[in-house]
Amino acid sequence: MTPATARRVCLGLRICWEEEPELIDLAPATANGPLAGYRVLEFGTNVSAPFAAMLLGDQGADVIKVETAGGDQTRGAGSLRSGVAGISSYFMNVNRNKRSIVVDLKAADGLAAVSALAATCDVVIQNYRPGVADRLGIGYEAIKALRPNIVYVSIDGMGTAGTAAKRRVYDIVIQAMSGFAATQAPIATGVPALVNNAVTDKITALNVWQGVTAALLHRERTGLGQHVQVSMLDAALAFLWPDAMTGITFTGDGVIKLASPAEIKFIHPTKDTHIVVGFFGPDEWAALCNVTGMSELIDEPRFRTLKDRLENIADVNRILSTAFLSRTTAEWVPLLEAADAVFAPVNSPDDLLQDRAIAEAGILEDFDHPATGGYRQPRHPVRFSETPASIRSHAPMLGADTADILGELGLSPD
Amino acid sequence: MTPATARRVCLGLRICWEEEPELIDLAPATANGPLAGYRVLEFGTNVSAPFAAMLLGDQGADVIKVETAGGDQTRGAGSLRSGVAGISSYFMNVNRNKRSIVVDLKAADGLAAVSALAATCDVVIQNYRPGVADRLGIGYEAIKALRPNIVYVSIDGMGTAGTAAKRRVYDIVIQAMSGFAATQAPIATGVPALVNNAVTDKITALNVWQGVTAALLHRERTGLGQHVQVSMLDAALAFLWPDAMTGITFTGDGVIKLASPAEIKFIHPTKDTHIVVGFFGPDEWAALCNVTGMSELIDEPRFRTLKDRLENIADVNRILSTAFLSRTTAEWVPLLEAADAVFAPVNSPDDLLQDRAIAEAGILEDFDHPATGGYRQPRHPVRFSETPASIRSHAPMLGADTADILGELGLSPD
Repeated sequence: MTPATARRVCLGLRICWEEEPELIDLAPATANGPLAGYRVLEFGTNVSAPFAAMLLGDQGADVIKVETAGGDQTRGAGSLRSGVAGISSYFMNVNRNKRSIVVDLKAADGLAAVSALAATCDVVIQNYRPGVADRLGIGYEAIKALRPNIVYVSIDGMGTAGTAAKRRVYDIVIQAMSGFAATQAPIATGVPALVNNAVTDKITALNVWQGVTAALLHRERTGLGQHVQVSMLDAALAFLWPDAMTGITFTGDGVIKLASPAEIKFIHPTKDTHIVVGFFGPDEWAALCNVTGMSELIDEPRFRTLKDRLENIADVNRILSTAFLSRTTAEWVPLLEAADAVFAPVNSPDDLLQDRAIAEAGILEDFDHPATGGYRQPRHPVRFSETPASIRSHAPMLGADTADILGELGLSPD
Repeated sequence: MTPATARRVCLGLRICWEEEPELIDLAPATANGPLAGYRVLEFGTNVSAPFAAMLLGDQGADVIKVETAGGDQTRGAGSLRSGVAGISSYFMNVNRNKRSIVVDLKAADGLAAVSALAATCDVVIQNYRPGVADRLGIGYEAIKALRPNIVYVSIDGMGTAGTAAKRRVYDIVIQAMSGFAATQAPIATGVPALVNNAVTDKITALNVWQGVTAALLHRERTGLGQHVQVSMLDAALAFLWPDAMTGITFTGDGVIKLASPAEIKFIHPTKDTHIVVGFFGPDEWAALCNVTGMSELIDEPRFRTLKDRLENIADVNRILSTAFLSRTTAEWVPLLEAADAVFAPVNSPDDLLQDRAIAEAGILEDFDHPATGGYRQPRHPVRFSETPASIRSHAPMLGADTADILGELGLSPD
């Protein structure tokens, strides 16, 4: 895939629904990000390894994704464009800024080609089940022998020792093990529920993204590579701990559990959809009372302080849920904004494409993929003043770069 | 706070509920992590900036947290130890591996002291509302004048321009704006719901953690610092996009939405609690049928392939929810493990302390805080073979290090 060559246009303060969004043509592949100059080899499927590698690619790394002849299974997940096979929205969302090479690792010359490629790389990321990479001949020791200062990342589910290390792990397994599912149980029913996206896969990816960067920093200072390991279960527990596990942080006796906001109803129905409001501080409570025409409640003794409101939370929940039914969400937004209240519309995916605040923030960008046509991406989430990240190439078709990459190594595609 | 000096003991393969866990005494403050040698100055409250700074501290950075006389508000959130004021479980979970200095930034000599301190730092992280850091005299330009190669991080809610930049932002606001709340709506009711932890605050922290590391890597290669900006709304949308936004990735016509697993009931009640099971592949379906004594369903035409099972998902959900009622979760776990099924117990926070697989993975460690006594932390989630991260000091009492830090600068606490 050759990136297009026109200039990159930022949507800036334009508002998406007033005009056709301008497509961002991809600039020539000049990487200015903080990872520019490093080469990453990804043996990844699904989300954890691919998402981490993509974020490194956004920051300038040259990312090469090794796929089997069948391709990463996300090539068939999410949405498809009618008449276009082998690439889906899911795959495109975690594989931009990469090249794809198809190699049969079980064939001797496939392993030889990948070994020659690994010898040119700074980073290897793999998310096979524990032991598989070693068996394939691309484990840490094998790659280190080819490239002594390699930063080699292994992602696993629940560690590499013990009975659970052998279990089949998906995001739903880690959500259940770590407490994500239990802490989603509504107070009213106590029935656990999942977070409806692959939250633990993606938290793992963010940990890998930082771990690679930290190991490269160490290598830049000392010349030494290393093995970096991230377990999904570690990543999930470390993420939940700060606030979701405050109740089990202290051991022993004399633990005082403070009033929790868990019983506050933050989401209320409006005439058409739903809205979120908050009332932690006194100004925030006053703003809600004023905007709903209930200013007499500001100094009502039952609701005066946050402590008062929490002690009478059932009344507060009921009053607010009734109050917001009288207008549509679009009618409430400017009123709440003018009142300096804590609020947000509950945006569905379609709603957020129409949200003026999101448009003004300039987060969503439109592109044109040579195979699948028009698509949207959020910009890279970290903005560097001197080393801007960028979307420089679309997600590749399966094996699109096999011949090019082998050619760079002086090998033929056979 | 002076770290204790005894050896660090790893729980290893011990199983928590069979014996008292051994306390991990803190080693002398030798930082071997990849960030060792860097100094981070944190002007942070709540979660986003403090969590990011703590993760940098885990990796060896010398982190100094600047607090007002009132202290970070999380000092009073979560759980408290009876009789111990000024520090809570919430605060301890995002402020280990830091020192605390109390400074009045609005006083001239307070600003002078912080400026002298900033001149010794490699990184500054602040999460004030846009414009506040500049007004206080600790904005990017002011710090850069003192330390030209500073890596300066600004965290905001919804950007720094446009109407929404001025809004009051909490995690609940970003969950609503970004689509987290809408995508939590159960199919049956369509009523949106929140993720019950500060998921967007913490995703922002993980982005900041990587952004700082990447900017330090760039500085190591070029000598140049920079301004790094992360908006919570950017971080949330970039996180949701890969899988939760596959339906709005393509623009234009001819978009085919594939069957989604959203209607699969993954969580089933057991005789006592709940369990998660999955059945994506044929082996996984067969394992569930065998372990529940329904092996006749393996080749039942309605359920033979994943496509078949999705087309008859209501029947699958009902059959499994009935089947798992017959035993307790503790009875099911070894049976499902032996069958190589996709499964996990739905662990409550208390359950996960008793989970053998979590104990075997060695993730949770026990410490003894000089003020609050016994407490648990998950280990740092990224494991480096050559530059191990570590928990070297407990979360500090408010201003515990003010005199020491000022002394290092040649200043007096007055």
